Amino acid sequence: MALTILKGAILSAPALGRLEVTEGGYLIAEDGVITGTFPALPERYAGAPVEDFGGALILQAPADLHLHAPQYPMMGMGMDLPLLDWLNTYAFPTEARFADPGYAREVYRCLAEDLIANGTTRVCMFSSLHREATLILMEELEKAGVTGYVGKVNMDRNGGENLQETTEESMAETLRWLEECGDFRHIRPIVTPRFTPSCTDELMAFLGRLAAERGLPVQSHLSENTAEGDWVRQLHPDCGQYWETYDKYGLWNGRTVMAHCVWCDERERRAMKDAGVTAVHCPDSNQNLCSGVSPVRVLLSEGVKVALGTDVAGGDTLSMLDAASSAIRASKARRILDGWGTDFLTAAEAWYLATSAGAEFFGEKPGFAPGNALHALVLDDSRLLQPHPLTPEERLERCLYHRQPGAVRAVWSAGRRAR
Amino acid sequence: MALTILKGAILSAPALGRLEVTEGGYLIAEDGVITGTFPALPERYAGAPVEDFGGALILQAPADLHLHAPQYPMMGMGMDLPLLDWLNTYAFPTEARFADPGYAREVYRCLAEDLIANGTTRVCMFSSLHREATLILMEELEKAGVTGYVGKVNMDRNGGENLQETTEESMAETLRWLEECGDFRHIRPIVTPRFTPSCTDELMAFLGRLAAERGLPVQSHLSENTAEGDWVRQLHPDCGQYWETYDKYGLWNGRTVMAHCVWCDERERRAMKDAGVTAVHCPDSNQNLCSGVSPVRVLLSEGVKVALGTDVAGGDTLSMLDAASSAIRASKARRILDGWGTDFLTAAEAWYLATSAGAEFFGEKPGFAPGNALHALVLDDSRLLQPHPLTPEERLERCLYHRQPGAVRAVWSAGRRAR
Repeated sequence: MALTILKGAILSAPALGRLEVTEGGYLIAEDGVITGTFPALPERYAGAPVEDFGGALILQAPADLHLHAPQYPMMGMGMDLPLLDWLNTYAFPTEARFADPGYAREVYRCLAEDLIANGTTRVCMFSSLHREATLILMEELEKAGVTGYVGKVNMDRNGGENLQETTEESMAETLRWLEECGDFRHIRPIVTPRFTPSCTDELMAFLGRLAAERGLPVQSHLSENTAEGDWVRQLHPDCGQYWETYDKYGLWNGRTVMAHCVWCDERERRAMKDAGVTAVHCPDSNQNLCSGVSPVRVLLSEGVKVALGTDVAGGDTLSMLDAASSAIRASKARRILDGWGTDFLTAAEAWYLATSAGAEFFGEKPGFAPGNALHALVLDDSRLLQPHPLTPEERLERCLYHRQPGAVRAVWSAGRRAR
Repeated sequence: MALTILKGAILSAPALGRLEVTEGGYLIAEDGVITGTFPALPERYAGAPVEDFGGALILQAPADLHLHAPQYPMMGMGMDLPLLDWLNTYAFPTEARFADPGYAREVYRCLAEDLIANGTTRVCMFSSLHREATLILMEELEKAGVTGYVGKVNMDRNGGENLQETTEESMAETLRWLEECGDFRHIRPIVTPRFTPSCTDELMAFLGRLAAERGLPVQSHLSENTAEGDWVRQLHPDCGQYWETYDKYGLWNGRTVMAHCVWCDERERRAMKDAGVTAVHCPDSNQNLCSGVSPVRVLLSEGVKVALGTDVAGGDTLSMLDAASSAIRASKARRILDGWGTDFLTAAEAWYLATSAGAEFFGEKPGFAPGNALHALVLDDSRLLQPHPLTPEERLERCLYHRQPGAVRAVWSAGRRAR
């Protein structure tokens, strides 16, 4: 049996807004599965090797539930454009380059290493429509130690130049991709219609059947931008609301993640809650593309599942610590927008969304619960000045705001040491 | 005569929203004063040594027109509190520690070096109320190569525990500080009433007379937060508006910088314009402390001078590149708040605010104008992936969003090489 014993200032988010702290504690995993967090080393482990990280923070590794791998080279570009123009001018031409497997290999190797360097160990990720590049992406993530879901994007209408499939190609390539990605252990496929405007009804129906037959999860975009919402309504006069264009084809259930959810009204939010759909809040992207400010507090209070995503490259950072502080900032913009009527997210709440809430989509319990796979990172904030002796909670808050290159000293992903 | 010739992709902001680019150009200074930017080396400089930075960007070094030096150790902390609670719980106790000159030396040395590492060469900066620590701060900035203004803070009411002076102490210590800081070449004193609630009428009157008699500039805070505004109105029933509490005492003129200006109404904005007061927009701080979203586009269109500040530690970053992208984000929040009625700031506009607009307060012309002191930085973005061949304008935008530790390879401040 492989035993992992980590010692440090252990901090986890077992519930929304609650942090659990064990300073000088022991986080223990057997064969990569957490057995518990202990204030002192239990007797049954006496003599076992302990990795002692001193006063460093030992945190849950975050989960990034929405990002676009082929947009990784263009982070922070074209941010002065609205969503649909930005897609056509920047995102689609960049994605089109991934027809070249050599380029895909080069970029995706960097991306996978950068994710681990930032401590992100679980993802729900969009590839491009290219089957080969998608397999390369999965291979590089697997190799670097990233776990989770990757989807070959489907888009058989309204694409960019060199970035569209026929309906037949989309279906055939998706089936072939599913055959060829059978061997990855930690990276699995997810059905990925880009968004309703990109997929014909025939393709949507095919993808819905595929998800049902093979028991696959689904990822897409929902109610990101008002112009997009108008477009969807034009394309689907039969559907009263955006979500119904997914529901109609069997793409709306407890294994569905929907990015953004900025403009969901009460009925759409209720549909999310009833179906168990996870909303992925992407605060950086929503602000950069001027999409709006998601009513995260309302979603949470109504019982909708909410996790966080970087949405690279609508978002301009790969770091989920950045995404957590951005979620706090966005919630403050929302509070101002609501005339100070809604509470903003606290640091503890944002960190829960970045970690436990995302992990739930992968079937895990919140915090460092026994039975969870070990996903953890060691964050060394010892180079920062100390205005007074800080609690671990204060240190976490500071680490969310204060970018510290190289501060992630060690990472475990699904029980394996990845950094 | 000392000659400086820098070669690279020279990019400057000679007007709001306009970037001037000379790829493979030469930026030349004689005795630290810019003579011009040239597409080819002028004949009169033939044979002179050229520092060739290849394809790297050569940018104006930014000016940070509002930050609190003693809050530097607490960046990113207590961000879940509103302004007045945050001051009492975090800012005031941290500032109180600067009664200890040893602590001041340690922190201010780091701060000064960190400013230069981030490329910031000009500041308007608040110290604490401690004379000795303020002199240490000025010394460390001078040594590191930072230029600009530093103010010993005055506060004789509503301070924190161990952080208040009597009126007499405040006046006497201010006079003594002015005597003792005569020797700094690049760092000069600025009159600094913390804000109206911190200063009695007697102290304000003294500071106004002092500024007039000695020809000193003035810095303070204005209309940051609604609760603060209410408080000021209670304290000054004789003044219709916040700005009048400064104007009344001669602290409101063309050499005044006022931080924040989030809640200035039309009349207050008009008063700023008429007096030539510079508004310092601090987007990170305004969002972190949930103060509001400054109507920067309105200020600019009405002809008010606007520069940028980090407002460390209401702001959580010392980087003015971060402050520029935060200003863009804030302007997008403002656009959403205004029902999409106001345009957001473009990357070119934000960079103008971070550089030329701030430099104007120090008497300089916009851009790399001949006659300006050489304040420049070399930014190396060569480690970033290239989705396609990028223009210098695209590279600048990406550098504002994409944090690159160590990317500032060289810095000139007031003609001197500082990094």
